[in-house]
Amino acid sequence: MRVAGSNRDETWKRVRAAGVDLLYRHGFEATNTRQLAEAAGLKPGSLYYYFSSKEDFLHRLLVDLLEEIVEDLEQSLEGVTDPVDRLETYVRTLVSWHVLRREETFIASIEVRSLTHDRQESYMLLRDRFDAILADILRDGADAGVFDLDHPSITRNAVLSTLTAISTWYDPDGPFGLEDLTSDFVELSRRMVGLKRGD
Amino acid sequence: MRVAGSNRDETWKRVRAAGVDLLYRHGFEATNTRQLAEAAGLKPGSLYYYFSSKEDFLHRLLVDLLEEIVEDLEQSLEGVTDPVDRLETYVRTLVSWHVLRREETFIASIEVRSLTHDRQESYMLLRDRFDAILADILRDGADAGVFDLDHPSITRNAVLSTLTAISTWYDPDGPFGLEDLTSDFVELSRRMVGLKRGD
Repeated sequence: MRVAGSNRDETWKRVRAAGVDLLYRHGFEATNTRQLAEAAGLKPGSLYYYFSSKEDFLHRLLVDLLEEIVEDLEQSLEGVTDPVDRLETYVRTLVSWHVLRREETFIASIEVRSLTHDRQESYMLLRDRFDAILADILRDGADAGVFDLDHPSITRNAVLSTLTAISTWYDPDGPFGLEDLTSDFVELSRRMVGLKRGD
Repeated sequence: MRVAGSNRDETWKRVRAAGVDLLYRHGFEATNTRQLAEAAGLKPGSLYYYFSSKEDFLHRLLVDLLEEIVEDLEQSLEGVTDPVDRLETYVRTLVSWHVLRREETFIASIEVRSLTHDRQESYMLLRDRFDAILADILRDGADAGVFDLDHPSITRNAVLSTLTAISTWYDPDGPFGLEDLTSDFVELSRRMVGLKRGD
C-alpha cells in the first residue's frame, strides 16, 4: 500500500505538472486528456486511475492548490495578533504564491468557470474560506481603529486583485524579484487600508 | 452605400451583442460561429460578411473595445493637467467601463490569449498605448514630487489590476452602485500613489 501510494504520488506529480503546463499554455477548453497522457508519458487509459475526466483533473488541481494556499496562510498567521502584522504576513504569503507558483495561480484565476455547476459550488465553499481570511484581518484592523476603510468588502476585493493579478503580469526574466514585489505589495496594501509609511 | 452601411451596423450590433453574451457565459473555446449566428438570428453563412472566423470576431471585439476605452480616456483627460486630477479622471473613467460594460471588459481580461500570435501582437500594440496612459500619469506625478512610488511599473500594474478586476467580482444586484465604486477606487488609487485624504 505504501509503495503503491508513493509510486502513485510520483506519477500523479508528473501528470499534475504536465497538466499545469498544458492548461497554462493552451487553456482548459483547448486541452484534452490524450495530450495530457502523452505529455506525462502515460497511456490515455492510465489517467483514469487519477481522475474521471479533464474537468475532474481541473477540479482536483484547483481544490488542492487553494487548500494548500489556505493552509499556508493559516499557518503563517498563527500566533500573529496585530492587524498590521497580520496584513503584512498575509500579503507576503500571497505574493510568494503568485510569483513562485505563477502557472497554477494563473490557471486558478481564469479556469474556475470551466468547472460544471456542482464542482464550481464545492470550489466556491473553499474560496469563501480563503476570502474570509483577508476579510477578518481588515475587520479586526478597522474595529481596532488602525485601518481606515470606506467599504471593507470593496477594499478586500481591491487588495486581493492586486495580489492575484501578479501571476498574469509577472515576468520572472524581468527586472523584479520576489523581494521587490513583496516589499512593494506590503507597502501598497498598507496604504490601501489607510496606513502611512512607518505606522 | 450609406444605407447598406447603416443596415450593416444594425446587424453588426446584433451579432456583436449575441457574441458578447455567448463569450461571457461560455468562453471563447466553448463558443462556435453556428451558435453565434443562431443567437443573432442569422444564417451561419451571413456571418462571413462581418468576419472570417470566430477568432476574427474576437479580435474585432477586443480591438474595438480597447480603442473605445483609449479614446474615452484621452478625451476625458484632455485639458486636465494636474497629476492628482488626471489620476482621479483616469480611475473614474475605468471604473465606469468595468461596471457599465462588465461583460465585454471581462471577456477582454481573459480571452486575449485565445488570439493567435499575429492578432495577439496587433492587440498588444494597442494595449501598450493603453498602459502608457497610466504610466505617464504616474511618472508626471512622481516627477512633480506629488506621488511617492517604489517602482512605478509595479504601482501601475497594481492600480490597473484593482480596476480591471472589477468586472470579475462586481455584482450589479449587490449592495454597491457605480458611485460607491467610483469614490472608493478614487480613494484607493490616491492612497496607492502615496496621497492622503485631502491632499
